[in-house]
Amino acid sequence: METSDSVTAAGSAIGSSPALRRLSLADRARLNGHVPAVLWFTGLSGSGKSTLANALEVRLHQQYAAHTFLLDGDVVRTGLNKDLGFSPEARTENIRRIGEVARLFYEAGLITLVAFISPFRADRDRVRALFPPGGFFEIYVNCPLEVCEQRDPKRLYQRARAGEVAAFTGIDSPYEPPRRPELTLDTAGTTPEACVGQALALLVQAGLFKA
Amino acid sequence: METSDSVTAAGSAIGSSPALRRLSLADRARLNGHVPAVLWFTGLSGSGKSTLANALEVRLHQQYAAHTFLLDGDVVRTGLNKDLGFSPEARTENIRRIGEVARLFYEAGLITLVAFISPFRADRDRVRALFPPGGFFEIYVNCPLEVCEQRDPKRLYQRARAGEVAAFTGIDSPYEPPRRPELTLDTAGTTPEACVGQALALLVQAGLFKA
Repeated sequence: METSDSVTAAGSAIGSSPALRRLSLADRARLNGHVPAVLWFTGLSGSGKSTLANALEVRLHQQYAAHTFLLDGDVVRTGLNKDLGFSPEARTENIRRIGEVARLFYEAGLITLVAFISPFRADRDRVRALFPPGGFFEIYVNCPLEVCEQRDPKRLYQRARAGEVAAFTGIDSPYEPPRRPELTLDTAGTTPEACVGQALALLVQAGLFKA
Repeated sequence: METSDSVTAAGSAIGSSPALRRLSLADRARLNGHVPAVLWFTGLSGSGKSTLANALEVRLHQQYAAHTFLLDGDVVRTGLNKDLGFSPEARTENIRRIGEVARLFYEAGLITLVAFISPFRADRDRVRALFPPGGFFEIYVNCPLEVCEQRDPKRLYQRARAGEVAAFTGIDSPYEPPRRPELTLDTAGTTPEACVGQALALLVQAGLFKA
């Protein structure tokens, strides 16, 4: 058996530079009951990225017993990327690191939900290139700026308009919408429940749970 | 039910800044059948860290159906940390990021094996502080320098002695052994199989699989 061989190979070979057999993606998919994927939610502040990603993660956990993780500003900006600010260079490095972390979670076999404004197309495309075809789903959380600004859950638009926050996406820093996202969710005209349903349908259709 | 409530709370609240209920560590432990942990292998180059971590990961997968991941130089230095060199500052940043990534994997519910020389005690202690008591296992892979240098699987000692690799741990850069590791494995006098057995016994005794 493949994995039995690995134990033997690894166990008998300290210091002799063996070609170590690691657990494969297939081993992990068998254990999890699904293949890995990265679901990348991009959109303006207040568009609903984190809310939808969180609701989708809970559904994946409850309904599919899927092995998941959610990466967003709350968990990344306070830890791994706490050394980074909000200059264009720092934003690019922020997204680069998040992409690399998502790749590690992908290799670990998880369905990883990522919710970041990630305003620059080039940054998102560099992340996409880390994954095999079918492994990366760009989900555009589309919502008019006026609606986002009216919601303003963190009072960030208010502060940006008052000049207290510089280079705020949608106000004085650009947002570049995806050209060919795997899915677009219109959160101004669709209920959150329906948005989550659309995302789930996409994942089922893509064959994630056929492993 | 706790998680049903989360769906409702998340689903009905875009933009209204709700205190979103996320999946908890307990939710993930129920799904996985074990609690998370970080197993941090530290020791000289050639001491056997990656070999043992890999063999242990395969055993955890096969025998306990555990949800695991292995972080080592092969996966981290080529991706997330490819911007870092080997100066003392870069080594400290390397270990800081790896510690933060291990924390994300911990929060995702996995048993994460980390294999890095990680020569500086202060760097390792900062990582330890990221985890709750009982969540972090420092495993000292203890092996005399002479034995490591004789094994020299990657010909790194040879190159260090020839002056081709600067600041090489054990040659011209210090290694600070752990003062109170959770486990010490003496790879010069113990078979790899026995070392893996000792590590497994520690994890079982610690109650990882009672979840």
